Amino acid sequence: MQNSQARVDNAAKVARVASRRLALLPRADKDAALRALADAIEAGADDVVRANERDLTRGDAAGMPANLQDRLRLTPERVSGVADALRELAALPDPIGDVVRGSTLANGLQVRQIRVPMGVVGMIYEARPNVTVDAAGLGLKSGNAMILRGGSAAAATNAALVEIMRTTLARIGLPADTVQLLDGGREDVGALITARGLVDLVIPRGGADLIRTVVTQATVPVIETGVGNCHVYVDAEADLDMALAIAVNSKTHRPSVCNAAESLLVHQSVAADFLPKVLAELGGAGVLLHTDEQASLAAQAAGVSCEPVTDADWAAEHLAMELSVGVVPSLDAALDHIAQYGTQHTEAIVTQDRKAARRFTSEVDAAVVMVNASTRFTDGGEFGFGAEIGISTQKLHARGPMALQELTSTKWVVEGDGQVRV
Amino acid sequence: MQNSQARVDNAAKVARVASRRLALLPRADKDAALRALADAIEAGADDVVRANERDLTRGDAAGMPANLQDRLRLTPERVSGVADALRELAALPDPIGDVVRGSTLANGLQVRQIRVPMGVVGMIYEARPNVTVDAAGLGLKSGNAMILRGGSAAAATNAALVEIMRTTLARIGLPADTVQLLDGGREDVGALITARGLVDLVIPRGGADLIRTVVTQATVPVIETGVGNCHVYVDAEADLDMALAIAVNSKTHRPSVCNAAESLLVHQSVAADFLPKVLAELGGAGVLLHTDEQASLAAQAAGVSCEPVTDADWAAEHLAMELSVGVVPSLDAALDHIAQYGTQHTEAIVTQDRKAARRFTSEVDAAVVMVNASTRFTDGGEFGFGAEIGISTQKLHARGPMALQELTSTKWVVEGDGQVRV
Repeated sequence: MQNSQARVDNAAKVARVASRRLALLPRADKDAALRALADAIEAGADDVVRANERDLTRGDAAGMPANLQDRLRLTPERVSGVADALRELAALPDPIGDVVRGSTLANGLQVRQIRVPMGVVGMIYEARPNVTVDAAGLGLKSGNAMILRGGSAAAATNAALVEIMRTTLARIGLPADTVQLLDGGREDVGALITARGLVDLVIPRGGADLIRTVVTQATVPVIETGVGNCHVYVDAEADLDMALAIAVNSKTHRPSVCNAAESLLVHQSVAADFLPKVLAELGGAGVLLHTDEQASLAAQAAGVSCEPVTDADWAAEHLAMELSVGVVPSLDAALDHIAQYGTQHTEAIVTQDRKAARRFTSEVDAAVVMVNASTRFTDGGEFGFGAEIGISTQKLHARGPMALQELTSTKWVVEGDGQVRV
Repeated sequence: MQNSQARVDNAAKVARVASRRLALLPRADKDAALRALADAIEAGADDVVRANERDLTRGDAAGMPANLQDRLRLTPERVSGVADALRELAALPDPIGDVVRGSTLANGLQVRQIRVPMGVVGMIYEARPNVTVDAAGLGLKSGNAMILRGGSAAAATNAALVEIMRTTLARIGLPADTVQLLDGGREDVGALITARGLVDLVIPRGGADLIRTVVTQATVPVIETGVGNCHVYVDAEADLDMALAIAVNSKTHRPSVCNAAESLLVHQSVAADFLPKVLAELGGAGVLLHTDEQASLAAQAAGVSCEPVTDADWAAEHLAMELSVGVVPSLDAALDHIAQYGTQHTEAIVTQDRKAARRFTSEVDAAVVMVNASTRFTDGGEFGFGAEIGISTQKLHARGPMALQELTSTKWVVEGDGQVRV
C-alpha cells in the first residue's frame, strides 16, 4: 500500500509539471497533437489489436461474459473509430480562456472570470479501451494531465494505447506525462483517490460498488457518474403511438447503458389502451417484465409472460432486457414514485398536455428531464459535446453529460490602476 | 453519536420537504419573504441583543480573546445591518430558472440547461451571528433549505435569530424548515457531513483544522473555503508609490481575514528603492516583519525591527499583523515561490509591464489573480455578488467568492415530438 501511494503520488507530481505546460498551450498546438495521436494510433493498430487479443484470451479463459468481451474487443475498424474520435475533438472549440462572466466595478476594477484547466485529473473506469483514448484526448484538449486507471481486464490493450500516445507526445515536443496509466492493482485506486493536493479531480466510471467505494474513501474531489434508474411516464394525455415508440426505444435500444429505461409508469386513464400494446411489443422483443397487479392482468390477457414487480425491482438498475411496469392514478403519483425510486439521472414524460409537461420538468429532480423523447438521448455525443467523459448524477460542478467544459475550472482576473480597499 | 446521526438525518429529511417547495417559489415570493425576515429581525433586535449578551458573558468568562468577542458582538446597529443585508439580497436577481446554455439539435430536440437549487445545503461556521442570517437569506433566495451549524460560542444568539426567522416563515406561509439550526455539539458536524443522499452540499467555513476534518471525513459533496496565504509581488516595472499603497493595504486593512496578504516579494532591481519605504511604513503600522537576508539589511538600515524569515513563515497564514518579506531575482522566481507556498486563494502583481502582467495572470494558479490592486478585493460584496457565503479555494464547482449562483446546480430539459435513437 505504501509503495502504491508513493508511486501514485509521484505520477501525480510529474502530471502536475506536465499540466503547467498544457495549461498554456494554444489551441492550434493542442489540435495538432490530437491529430498526431490519431494518426499514430491508426498506424499502430496492429500492435493494439494484438495486445487486445491477449486481453481477450485471458478474459475468455477467466470466463468473461460475451457482452463484456464485446466491450473490450478492438478490431482494426474500431481502432480507426477511436482515432476518428480524437480528430473530432480537434474540431471542437477550446473551452480554455473563455470569459464566463465579467464586469467593470464602480471603482474601475475590471473583473473577468476565465475558464482554466482543472490541472491533474484521475479517471477510474471499466475495461473499455476506447475510454482510454477518449479520456486522454479530452484531457489534452482541456489542458489537463490525465492519470488513467482502466479495468485490469484491458491491461495489455491500455498499455499499448498509452505507450503509443506517450511516444507520440514526446516526439512532437509535448510532455509524455500528459497521459499516464496506473497498472499497480487495486491499491492504486485507493492511492489515487487520497492523493489530496496532488490530484485536482477524480472521475469514477463503473458500477454502483466502485462509485460507492470512491465516494466514501476519497479525499480528492470526485464527480459521481452514472447509476441510472430511468423512468418513462406515459401521461393521461400522451400520444400513445409516440409513447409506444419511446418506451420501447428507451428500454431496448441499448439496455446495458445507464440511460436505458428501467421503469415504465402508465396513467390509469390510458392503461387499458396502452398496456396491451406496449407489453406485447416489449415481451416480443425479449424484455422480462416485472408488472404490478393491473399490468399483470393486461400482460396475461395479451398472452405475455410477466413476474410480479417487487420493491427491489422498482429500485433496480437492471442494465439488461428487464423492465418494471406499473399503473399510477395521477401525475402526482408518478412524480412521487420517481422521487422515491429515481437516481436523478434521466426521467421522461410522454404527454401532449402543456401543463403536465411543465410540472414534470419543474418538479422532477434529475440531471436530464425529457418531454416526448427517448431516455437514450442523455449522451454527450447526442447533445453535441463531442466525446463524453461520463454522465454526472451529482449536483456539484457538473450534472448530466460531461465533456470538455466539465473538465475545466475558472480563475478570476482583476485588473486595476492601484485600487485599495477604503 | 447514533442519536446525533438520527437527529441530523431527520433535519435533512424535513429540509428536503421544504426544499421541494422552495425550488418552485417565484422570485416575488422569495423577495417578500426576505423583506419580512429583515423586518422581523429588526423588530426582535432587543431579544437578539439580550441573547448575544449571554453569549458574550459566557465567552468572557471562558477567556475569549477581544477580537473574537468583537466578531461575536451584536449591537442594535449591527442587527439593523444584518437585516439590511437581507433587503439587499431581495434586490438581487434570482439565479433560479436562468438558461445557462441551449440549442436545437439536428433531430429537432430542443435542449436547455437550466439553473436549479442544490436542494439541502449544510453550513458549518465560526461564531459570527451575521453569517447565520446571511446563509439563511442566500439559501432562501437560491431556493435551498439550509441546515446551519454555527460556532457554539454564539449558540444563544443563533438560536434567537433562527427562532425569529422560522416563526416569520411559518407566519407568511413558507416552510419553517427553510432554515434549521443544529445545536447538538460536535457530533452534529460528523453527522451532517456523512448524511449522504440527504444533504446535497456542505460548506465548511473556519480554520484549517475544521476544513481538513470536513474534507477528510465527509461523504457528502463539500466546497472548501478560505485558507489564504496571499502574496503581493512587486515587479521590476512597478510604480513604487502604487506598490507601497497596495502592499500596506493588502496587509493592514483587515489582517484577520483570508484575503489579507501574508507575504511580500520584491524584484531585486527595485529592492533598494522600495524596501526601505515599505518596511518603514509596515513597521510603523505595527506589522511584525519576517525578512530574508536582503530585506533584513534594509530593515536594519531603516531602523525597523524584524526577524529572520523561516520556511514555516513563508507557508503561514498569520491572520495577524505579521508579514514575510523577501527579494526575488526574477518574475520566474516569484512565480515559483507562489507555486510552492501559495494556497490558490489570491495573488497580486504590481507592474506597469504588460508582458509581466500577462504572464502572472496566465501562470499563477489561484482563485483570484490581481494586477495593480489590493488582495482585499477578493470578496463577494466587492465583486458585486451581494452577500457572500464564503471564498472557495477549490477548483470544483466554485472558485473564489461564492454567492447565489454558486448555491445552484443545473438541470437539462429536453423537449421533442417523439424522437427516438436510431
